[in-house]
Amino acid sequence: MCPHSMEREPTAMTAFSRGDTPGPLQDQLTHIDEAGAARMVDVSEKDVTTRTARASGRVLVSPRVIELLRGEGVPKGDALATARIAGIMGAKRTPDLIPLCHPLAVSGVKVDLTVADDAVEILATVKTTDRTGVEMEALTAVSVAALTVIDMVKAVDKGAVITDVRVEEKTGGKSGDWSRS
Amino acid sequence: MCPHSMEREPTAMTAFSRGDTPGPLQDQLTHIDEAGAARMVDVSEKDVTTRTARASGRVLVSPRVIELLRGEGVPKGDALATARIAGIMGAKRTPDLIPLCHPLAVSGVKVDLTVADDAVEILATVKTTDRTGVEMEALTAVSVAALTVIDMVKAVDKGAVITDVRVEEKTGGKSGDWSRS
Amino acid sequence: MCPHSMEREPTAMTAFSRGDTPGPLQDQLTHIDEAGAARMVDVSEKDVTTRTARASGRVLVSPRVIELLRGEGVPKGDALATARIAGIMGAKRTPDLIPLCHPLAVSGVKVDLTVADDAVEILATVKTTDRTGVEMEALTAVSVAALTVIDMVKAVDKGAVITDVRVEEKTGGKSGDWSRS
Amino acid sequence: MCPHSMEREPTAMTAFSRGDTPGPLQDQLTHIDEAGAARMVDVSEKDVTTRTARASGRVLVSPRVIELLRGEGVPKGDALATARIAGIMGAKRTPDLIPLCHPLAVSGVKVDLTVADDAVEILATVKTTDRTGVEMEALTAVSVAALTVIDMVKAVDKGAVITDVRVEEKTGGKSGDWSRS
Amino acid sequence: MCPHSMEREPTAMTAFSRGDTPGPLQDQLTHIDEAGAARMVDVSEKDVTTRTARASGRVLVSPRVIELLRGEGVPKGDALATARIAGIMGAKRTPDLIPLCHPLAVSGVKVDLTVADDAVEILATVKTTDRTGVEMEALTAVSVAALTVIDMVKAVDKGAVITDVRVEEKTGGKSGDWSRS
Amino acid sequence: MCPHSMEREPTAMTAFSRGDTPGPLQDQLTHIDEAGAARMVDVSEKDVTTRTARASGRVLVSPRVIELLRGEGVPKGDALATARIAGIMGAKRTPDLIPLCHPLAVSGVKVDLTVADDAVEILATVKTTDRTGVEMEALTAVSVAALTVIDMVKAVDKGAVITDVRVEEKTGGKSGDWSRS
Repeated sequence: MCPHSMEREPTAMTAFSRGDTPGPLQDQLTHIDEAGAARMVDVSEKDVTTRTARASGRVLVSPRVIELLRGEGVPKGDALATARIAGIMGAKRTPDLIPLCHPLAVSGVKVDLTVADDAVEILATVKTTDRTGVEMEALTAVSVAALTVIDMVKAVDKGAVITDVRVEEKTGGKSGDWSRS
Repeated sequence: MCPHSMEREPTAMTAFSRGDTPGPLQDQLTHIDEAGAARMVDVSEKDVTTRTARASGRVLVSPRVIELLRGEGVPKGDALATARIAGIMGAKRTPDLIPLCHPLAVSGVKVDLTVADDAVEILATVKTTDRTGVEMEALTAVSVAALTVIDMVKAVDKGAVITDVRVEEKTGGKSGDWSRS
Repeated sequence: MCPHSMEREPTAMTAFSRGDTPGPLQDQLTHIDEAGAARMVDVSEKDVTTRTARASGRVLVSPRVIELLRGEGVPKGDALATARIAGIMGAKRTPDLIPLCHPLAVSGVKVDLTVADDAVEILATVKTTDRTGVEMEALTAVSVAALTVIDMVKAVDKGAVITDVRVEEKTGGKSGDWSRS
Repeated sequence: MCPHSMEREPTAMTAFSRGDTPGPLQDQLTHIDEAGAARMVDVSEKDVTTRTARASGRVLVSPRVIELLRGEGVPKGDALATARIAGIMGAKRTPDLIPLCHPLAVSGVKVDLTVADDAVEILATVKTTDRTGVEMEALTAVSVAALTVIDMVKAVDKGAVITDVRVEEKTGGKSGDWSRS
Repeated sequence: MCPHSMEREPTAMTAFSRGDTPGPLQDQLTHIDEAGAARMVDVSEKDVTTRTARASGRVLVSPRVIELLRGEGVPKGDALATARIAGIMGAKRTPDLIPLCHPLAVSGVKVDLTVADDAVEILATVKTTDRTGVEMEALTAVSVAALTVIDMVKAVDKGAVITDVRVEEKTGGKSGDWSRS
Repeated sequence: MCPHSMEREPTAMTAFSRGDTPGPLQDQLTHIDEAGAARMVDVSEKDVTTRTARASGRVLVSPRVIELLRGEGVPKGDALATARIAGIMGAKRTPDLIPLCHPLAVSGVKVDLTVADDAVEILATVKTTDRTGVEMEALTAVSVAALTVIDMVKAVDKGAVITDVRVEEKTGGKSGDWSRS
């Protein structure tokens, strides 16, 4: 059965072979095959190496929220801890959330939150020893931590904004090290 | 057992009574009780009403990514569909991701992605008929869709940035309608 | 921001209004709006009523597997119980698995497995009191139970086949009762 | 198809009718039908009312752990907050973990941790407005918080023990209020 | 404590030793131990090798659905993309759904959907580099994609049927290559 | 941006370096860094080795429950199987539940339930070939199985209590073998 597909899929071993060499990487959407179909790229040939990624982001909040998060007047209590833990757990949920992400062995996650004068600054660092990088895990950790900050402060500041969520640096893997300059 | 706690918790029925009236809402972190402990706020007294929220965000990408997402030269295929579906599914995962969010009956979700000249613009609208608002669901839909866009284009553009993720408008609920002006 | 989108979305309250009246239901893919975009259909206007659905399916297996599942020679032990429980849990995971399904209050699930002469017959009945039907929950329960049967027997019979997974009957809801004849 | 099952299941509407009246509740395992099969009991006929449950438990730890959790010498930091948040999130995961639990609208969760002289005492209170009680949600919150405490201290004390996890009190629902005396 | 169990479990290291050699594999339900208890089989001694599996299935639909999915008259839009993405995500959820499946490092997933004259044909190929095969991941991808197709078309065709879900081919692993002939 | 954080995080490669050497392991909460922040400890330098853990626990129940679970008078049916399967699945959910646990390759799980005279005794054995131990997976399996037993019997015995949940033995890993004596 499945004549058309069969034709396009001589064997399971070769199913990924064409689609995974779409020409110069920097010039294609690697998650889309030549027919335009989304697929999870085959990484079985990649080496298991130590890889890290660091991402950052900011949540712009009102002066009153800054006061509250700095514990002026009332105990800030678990506010930042809740966001930090949500970010760490978020990194582990990445393949559940991002359709084409590979499940991988997250071997370490750090999420730092800093209360600056007009924003909560978030920095997430993720480490793995696996076949693919952890940029998405780091970005997901930042995003989930940022969303948790907004949930925490929304009764005080409906206008909070998440901004500048981006990869700062990555190390390891075939494409090597990269850092935003 | 648990003497201290017992003392602070005369009965299950009253467990939430103090913590949920921390004084003027606009002046407190409602998710933190007077002792600084995170808790999921009791919403059982709130009315079941139709509530909506709309959130937006943008993913800043390179000109080459804009070309690819517009299908110039190669088929864009499922690229935007993947992000749209990830956003819709993300809205349903909100209480799994945000520690103090209430599970609620999401009754409708729309996620629109528009390829502008320098960014992918995302707009999510979520509707519910429940006891609490869906701002967090809308923001989570935007964030997960944005992360999926980055995953889709990261081989072409490592520098993509998620920005301006924010609530645009909400309707329904005790605090009434609100819109960013 | 998001000019194009804004234009297409005057307000959150009306965001679903057009898309949800795509003309005669029986003639459209309701989960796709007129622009071809997937969306979770707004059900907030639907009534909360008791709804049921019953789905069935079969797993075709070898005679040796039938012997083993009937406990001839060796104790069948937890084999069918594992599939039954997986099916019940699967019904609850439906909105996590099917992108456009609404989360709903599953109020009862039964999964029956019967070892016939050439197949394991599965029948799932799901009940809810909510705004949408549970056909997908019943079909998911059958599918997950069937997959679990295959996992259980695959060392003995690599060729097992899941077949005839279909809704047998539904009751309640605006579209009323339906049964396969 | 499914003759045997069909026979046992005249219609979807009646599928639960027998199984759900297995005689005096206090004398049966309600989650097992007369044939011994696990099923999720039909609660669609139950009233939507406010229900609460409170559960407690203790983690027996070494004196050194008590010192560390009290922040003597080193900052205890997020230790208790991590367990509190894990407990709150655990309450929401109850229907994912306990096969026959109904998904329900958790409307509030509080988890208190108290460092006593030889143990960490945990008290969880859960509230809902739904068709079934929240005893399992409260017990799950206590268990997940307790497991998190052990994870936090296991490098210091491999011998930590979770004990006395039990319902202290419930209110609401057909079976009415109950409290451990 | 646990005398009986202790007796049957001299040490953790040997806990799996008997149960995993139940005699000729092709003659037993390997997921059930000699006492009839379900268990997750120990695969720690298996080699980490590249393994693939390909599974197929069909969703029988009405002529009108075929027209709609081919985009005759209305844009088919995201219909097939939604099912494809659901299938890919479903492959990653396999160990969450199938009780005795091992979590494993899915290294690639492809899901092809073809609209034939009377059915939507689904073909899923999954690749891993791990200690166990991916037949269940491939079958789960097909099943979830098929369920999503039904969800998409159910307003138009209540009678859609999932059929012929089966493994077509596997490669790698101790049991070697296999293909349905 | 993120000045404070940047300052504290010279590079992603070194992000974990300080935090992971907090001095003598037996004297610190390794999951909390020197600033008191929760983090997922970096295990990327640890060796991939076979590790096992065995944990036990008990659910104290009434004499009537013991009768029912022994099948005296009524079929016990799936009661213990449901708890066993829930425990096995629970082991796989550990990193989703315990915020700072690493996802790992669970390679085998056994859960034994024994009906003693006054309690259901639970023994879970988990095996992995990975960079970190499986004590938490074994404890989670016991806890989820125990919660499921309570859910199963709560209509008959509201007062059931989970007690003595603890690690009995572990093998493998840098810290070597350990057993409770």
